[in-house]
Amino acid sequence: MDYRFSDRISALKPSAIREILKATAGSDVIPFAAGNPAPNAFPVEEVQKIAENILTNRPIEALQYGVTEGYNPLRERISAYMKAKHNIGRDFDNIIITSGAQQVVDLATKVLCNEGDIVICEGPSFIGSLNCFRSYNVELRGVDVEPDGLNIEQVENLLKTEKNVKMIYTIPNFQNPSGVTCSLEKRKALYELAKKYNVMILEDNPYGDLRVTGEHVPAIKSFDEDGLVIYVGSFSKILSPGLRVGYTIAPQDVIAKMTVGKQASDVHTPMFNQMLVDEWMDKYDFENHIEKIREIYKGKLNLMCDCIDENLGGFVEYVRPEGGLFIWCDLPESVDMPTFCKTAAENKVAVVPGVAFMAQPTDKTNAFRVNFSTPTDEGIVKGMKILG
Amino acid sequence: MDYRFSDRISALKPSAIREILKATAGSDVIPFAAGNPAPNAFPVEEVQKIAENILTNRPIEALQYGVTEGYNPLRERISAYMKAKHNIGRDFDNIIITSGAQQVVDLATKVLCNEGDIVICEGPSFIGSLNCFRSYNVELRGVDVEPDGLNIEQVENLLKTEKNVKMIYTIPNFQNPSGVTCSLEKRKALYELAKKYNVMILEDNPYGDLRVTGEHVPAIKSFDEDGLVIYVGSFSKILSPGLRVGYTIAPQDVIAKMTVGKQASDVHTPMFNQMLVDEWMDKYDFENHIEKIREIYKGKLNLMCDCIDENLGGFVEYVRPEGGLFIWCDLPESVDMPTFCKTAAENKVAVVPGVAFMAQPTDKTNAFRVNFSTPTDEGIVKGMKILG
Repeated sequence: MDYRFSDRISALKPSAIREILKATAGSDVIPFAAGNPAPNAFPVEEVQKIAENILTNRPIEALQYGVTEGYNPLRERISAYMKAKHNIGRDFDNIIITSGAQQVVDLATKVLCNEGDIVICEGPSFIGSLNCFRSYNVELRGVDVEPDGLNIEQVENLLKTEKNVKMIYTIPNFQNPSGVTCSLEKRKALYELAKKYNVMILEDNPYGDLRVTGEHVPAIKSFDEDGLVIYVGSFSKILSPGLRVGYTIAPQDVIAKMTVGKQASDVHTPMFNQMLVDEWMDKYDFENHIEKIREIYKGKLNLMCDCIDENLGGFVEYVRPEGGLFIWCDLPESVDMPTFCKTAAENKVAVVPGVAFMAQPTDKTNAFRVNFSTPTDEGIVKGMKILG
Repeated sequence: MDYRFSDRISALKPSAIREILKATAGSDVIPFAAGNPAPNAFPVEEVQKIAENILTNRPIEALQYGVTEGYNPLRERISAYMKAKHNIGRDFDNIIITSGAQQVVDLATKVLCNEGDIVICEGPSFIGSLNCFRSYNVELRGVDVEPDGLNIEQVENLLKTEKNVKMIYTIPNFQNPSGVTCSLEKRKALYELAKKYNVMILEDNPYGDLRVTGEHVPAIKSFDEDGLVIYVGSFSKILSPGLRVGYTIAPQDVIAKMTVGKQASDVHTPMFNQMLVDEWMDKYDFENHIEKIREIYKGKLNLMCDCIDENLGGFVEYVRPEGGLFIWCDLPESVDMPTFCKTAAENKVAVVPGVAFMAQPTDKTNAFRVNFSTPTDEGIVKGMKILG
């Protein structure tokens, strides 16, 4: 058989992170390359009780088909919570539950972008989203990430010169991989640009609850009075990534199209998983749990920054993140970054070469990404000594 | 905001079945339109025990990120079972676990079809798959379904005349909606055509285990020595649709591309759900459970056929299915089918107008589909009286 693959998939490569994780899968490798929550961040006992309760009292509902939009009590609970806590959601908005936040990026691209359309993103940005855009033959334009967020002038230049820009994709809080948090001024400026040029913003916020220092900055969606913003939420970093439950709050016209798209993709997100999240939010003090996670990550983030300063101080440059899971380490020009990452792997420390996160493979970077949630504290100390 | 949607989604309508289910959602409506498993077909106690065991003994694995290909023990278990039981899978094949069988159809289209490419399907066929093809701007060509399966001459004519046919989509067992089972001769003829014209077959088999009478017919995939067939399997009809666990066994080159595509769609299928299916297959006599389901559906299928004969005999024509969930009732030409279905709904019986299942909205049919797994036995009797 002579397999003829579609254009969209022929050009798409497996994630570089996956390949690194495979190549460094041995238990003796220190995992700075992953982005997994720390094992002690899972509310295991609560999940046990909730699962037992659901499967005892409402087993058929948990095992039967559900509607594509998602489990209604969960939709209503998230909507009410996000409105009260973050002023997110207006009368013109709606919500659907998705199979992880990744599916929101997929559905947004599916309903908004034709092949050849353009998405503006941060350069560097989250590789899973970049590959998703690429899987629709969408063209990516990366803009620089500065210590206070993406470069607004570059965004406006692109909006002026490029036809068919359909979305601006941004991770405003503790951006993956740069760790940078976008300032309120830049969020507002970005919103005004989107309004002026009639382009939607895809605001991806998986790490927003993981702030360990500094002041909360309101989401772009919180000042969306014009129906410009598709907000992407996730339970992966605060409850469990393995359950694959995310959601989007977006203008109802967009949600209606996404629902049709999701029906064709996977019919609906598993009922049991949605009911579990719903009961967790309803019956447990999940904000206290998030506070506990923040404490865990605060310790790990501070430890890793201290270890970088001690072992690589004056050698790499980095913006100290106010939360999230990642630190972006910029090497001096005299160092060849791919060689550095390869040597690190040979010495049993897995880090991700920065080029994996760029919009175009030709976009330049001399940085690498490290993660502090996955390794143990001992691993952080030892790994950074080896990198040093 | 002036929303500009993609071409692929602008033309796509929500499933007609969904709309009927919404319009006839009242508890006093007899549900012949759905396709839900009967509530007493779920192995509730087993699922309770398995969930408790997983969350007690391996909670972190169930809640943490997994790999895109799926939970390895489950992949190996299904592969071994399908090889031993159905002679499905060769050395050149591989398997991935998906978020329901729907996702296999989505991934197959994603990796094989460019916009404008052609998929040959049965006319009528499963609306979820048809909408999935449409969501990639793929063109559909329907071929007639005869009592022994799809019309092979029409398939060959299409393969001869149409360029860029990339897939033949077929549901060989108890086809949805026609209830027809494809004969072994036609399965072999279809395979030879696919080989001759270098086109892949997407063999969708959600109902294969639900045979209630007649002889088992081997899957097309069981004689695939050339790597032509993508086999689609599902746990929705034998364990639970709400868990959203399906799988595909296909040539490894195709699986590799699907894995990259799935990573961009939803990263992976929920770990807990996969572990649950794995333990169910491992520790319980699931073949005995399937036998139990067959007995339930055998009673319901026979009851519905008897009721059709009694109330609509000589009026509608149908092929008595040897299994599955659906019966396809052809009205005489003198009857206007849409009016019939509308009048049925007004009289509190929900059926699906046949046009919803056609490849093109202009393809003619005067049939409607009824389902016998969802209604109670009393509902079947009463509903068929009303239709009569």
